[in-house]
Amino acid sequence: MSTPVRFTLPESELPRAWYNLQADFSEPLPPPLNPGTREPVSPEMMTAIFPENLVEQEMSSERYIEIPDPVREILALWRPTPLLRAVRLERALNTPAHIYYKYEGGSPAGSHKPNTAVAQAFYNKEAGTKRLATETGAGQWGSSLAFACKLFGLECTVYMVKVSFHHKPYRGLMMQSWGAEVFASPSDRTEYGRKVLATDPDCPGSLGMAISEAVEDTVTSKNTKYALGSVLNHVCLHQSVIGEEAIKQMQLAGEEPDVIIGCIGGGSNFAGVAFPFIREKLKHGRKYKIVAVEPSVCASVTQGELKYDFGDTAEMTPLLMMHTLGHGFIPPKIHAGGLRYHGMAPMVSHAVKLGLADAVAYPQTRVFQAAVQFARTEGILPAPEPSHAIAAAIDEAIQCREEGRKKVILFNLCGHGMLDLASYDAFLSGKLTDD
Amino acid sequence: MSTPVRFTLPESELPRAWYNLQADFSEPLPPPLNPGTREPVSPEMMTAIFPENLVEQEMSSERYIEIPDPVREILALWRPTPLLRAVRLERALNTPAHIYYKYEGGSPAGSHKPNTAVAQAFYNKEAGTKRLATETGAGQWGSSLAFACKLFGLECTVYMVKVSFHHKPYRGLMMQSWGAEVFASPSDRTEYGRKVLATDPDCPGSLGMAISEAVEDTVTSKNTKYALGSVLNHVCLHQSVIGEEAIKQMQLAGEEPDVIIGCIGGGSNFAGVAFPFIREKLKHGRKYKIVAVEPSVCASVTQGELKYDFGDTAEMTPLLMMHTLGHGFIPPKIHAGGLRYHGMAPMVSHAVKLGLADAVAYPQTRVFQAAVQFARTEGILPAPEPSHAIAAAIDEAIQCREEGRKKVILFNLCGHGMLDLASYDAFLSGKLTDD
Repeated sequence: MSTPVRFTLPESELPRAWYNLQADFSEPLPPPLNPGTREPVSPEMMTAIFPENLVEQEMSSERYIEIPDPVREILALWRPTPLLRAVRLERALNTPAHIYYKYEGGSPAGSHKPNTAVAQAFYNKEAGTKRLATETGAGQWGSSLAFACKLFGLECTVYMVKVSFHHKPYRGLMMQSWGAEVFASPSDRTEYGRKVLATDPDCPGSLGMAISEAVEDTVTSKNTKYALGSVLNHVCLHQSVIGEEAIKQMQLAGEEPDVIIGCIGGGSNFAGVAFPFIREKLKHGRKYKIVAVEPSVCASVTQGELKYDFGDTAEMTPLLMMHTLGHGFIPPKIHAGGLRYHGMAPMVSHAVKLGLADAVAYPQTRVFQAAVQFARTEGILPAPEPSHAIAAAIDEAIQCREEGRKKVILFNLCGHGMLDLASYDAFLSGKLTDD
Repeated sequence: MSTPVRFTLPESELPRAWYNLQADFSEPLPPPLNPGTREPVSPEMMTAIFPENLVEQEMSSERYIEIPDPVREILALWRPTPLLRAVRLERALNTPAHIYYKYEGGSPAGSHKPNTAVAQAFYNKEAGTKRLATETGAGQWGSSLAFACKLFGLECTVYMVKVSFHHKPYRGLMMQSWGAEVFASPSDRTEYGRKVLATDPDCPGSLGMAISEAVEDTVTSKNTKYALGSVLNHVCLHQSVIGEEAIKQMQLAGEEPDVIIGCIGGGSNFAGVAFPFIREKLKHGRKYKIVAVEPSVCASVTQGELKYDFGDTAEMTPLLMMHTLGHGFIPPKIHAGGLRYHGMAPMVSHAVKLGLADAVAYPQTRVFQAAVQFARTEGILPAPEPSHAIAAAIDEAIQCREEGRKKVILFNLCGHGMLDLASYDAFLSGKLTDD
């Protein structure tokens, strides 16, 4: 075969430590604040909903944190994930650019989310937690946590935004197949849910409401903790395996990326691919251009403000220093459900503030054009979320063609679109709009 | 990590040749017969629906056939596929057995079917074909061929059994996302389809009818050929990459399998994993026990007869020497749609006849118990079809526990169940029966 297209690592190269960008920021990450006092939140306050060992990770500025063997044993089910070169897309674009992508869709839940779900389930099990409660929008996170909990013998309760619960029945069934209990939110299981239903029995729900129900469930139950699938520092930490593997795989390919691209919703898959490269940039003076891609209609970084804001709609979380559209902002119902979040991971916001990464925004129809072009050349049907990264990668490659120069582009394909086919149908039948 | 669980091969180890078991049979495979004359079918007759290069492969008894580079380049998107050790399932079963599985669910369509779809699209492209017509039941084959045709610039027409077309809308959408046209069969596009609809406008369709429509479409159109996803010799040939990789991977694991298990419908995934091991058995006198697992209610090998029969219901194909329940047999609507076929690949039937492989049959509820046990220990949600192989592997492992002896068990997990979640729901809610 003339052109190698697949770069894989054996199990022995599965990373042994997570990388923590906090250790390398030139100014420290602003801490979360207590909304009442505006003082930094104490570890004790956070242990109301998270186990102590994860709170420690959340607040750690250690550069490397060892990945426990039981976590590595489960990650090895699908990791190291492949790095692929998109030769057929390159040919279709007639570009001198080389396009590589890290493919996270081979996990049991079909995305990068299990990377942190497995770690969170492990630490909770260690801490004596019996049950995890969480929320989920489109269902990627809920199914990943259901999978991880079952493997560690934890119970799992998922509050799934009601409109998604009914529109994406397969995601709910997936969680149940892994033994989780799933409730359409708002539900009658919490005081908050009952209050909402009393006012509006047909309320379609929102991520903010589902968070409130999961947190209420946690603080009013015994041996129960809460788990979040993005935004927080320890989540970004757990996702660093993506970039650590990609660095080694780009070496196998004998190239160094000029541009590194990931989509951002809460920020975790972008953090996963980008932060280890930011370390290399800082340590070795590399010139990587690092790009976070968000939806135009929910553009927290490019159109929001960097300030302290609540992580949820109901004002139950600490204040986080992040790019935000305001915690009352309700994003339009775009198909990339995983990118519908008003804020941004504080670590991603901080990296952008320090000039370590840039952000761009893409409208939905352009994103789906890119998704279909990718599916019809490369073969993998991407989820709507990483299709934002694909659109930006294609535009970089087109620019290379126009300028007649080669660049090496790397993007993170964080999940497949097998359970998003109704969105493809909407696009292909001309029913998709930009909001 | 104490126990290695993942055995991978780099792209450079992707097989360079397909293995053809015909070369090693102690008595030759009985040829297909012309139903009118009962004389062997000539290559010329077969080129009415297949291109010459594939007819040559169908009739070849060469031991190895080189895999063309353009085919290998696309296979490298997901191949070599991983071999995994099911350590968590072993622990749950408390068995001294070691259980390994080859995982084919990482392909773009989610199963082993693209292994042959890519090859068939390539050879058709080489032969000047412009369009491929095919049928599909549950949709695995149709989506795999749609994917492969798009990558080689061929048009693709899929006749999908009407009841599946409506019950499995995501499979149809997947084909359309890859640019194929999909028709619910019986359709009004063929004379045969119109005839059926005239008698029974609400006819739910069957695989036999869909084959008839695809073949009629082929012979009445220009530059159009027909493609089949299982049963035929060249399909078994293309699937041999599975077993070739598995042999190398078992060496990496430092073990030799005692038992090799695959499910059978048309026979292709079983042929893929088993035939290269049968070669080793014949050549080196190995003692592998090789087991084909079929559904109790469509048990062509364990309950059918080995004789010449038609491959389709409408008696349009040549006669094939195979285990068959009779070409008029309509299998119950079990969830393992890919195993609902009245006959068996002639090469698989011949291997069983010569004592090179055994067959067993499993009822549906036992199969789904195994699927759920596997999903909840190993983490991957298996499709209903390979869950037949899982059930047999679990029973082998339990026997090992009872007899207090270790065996090394290898099975082929030929596809994931992400688009089969409605079947899981039926099982988990107690609605699933054995027929």
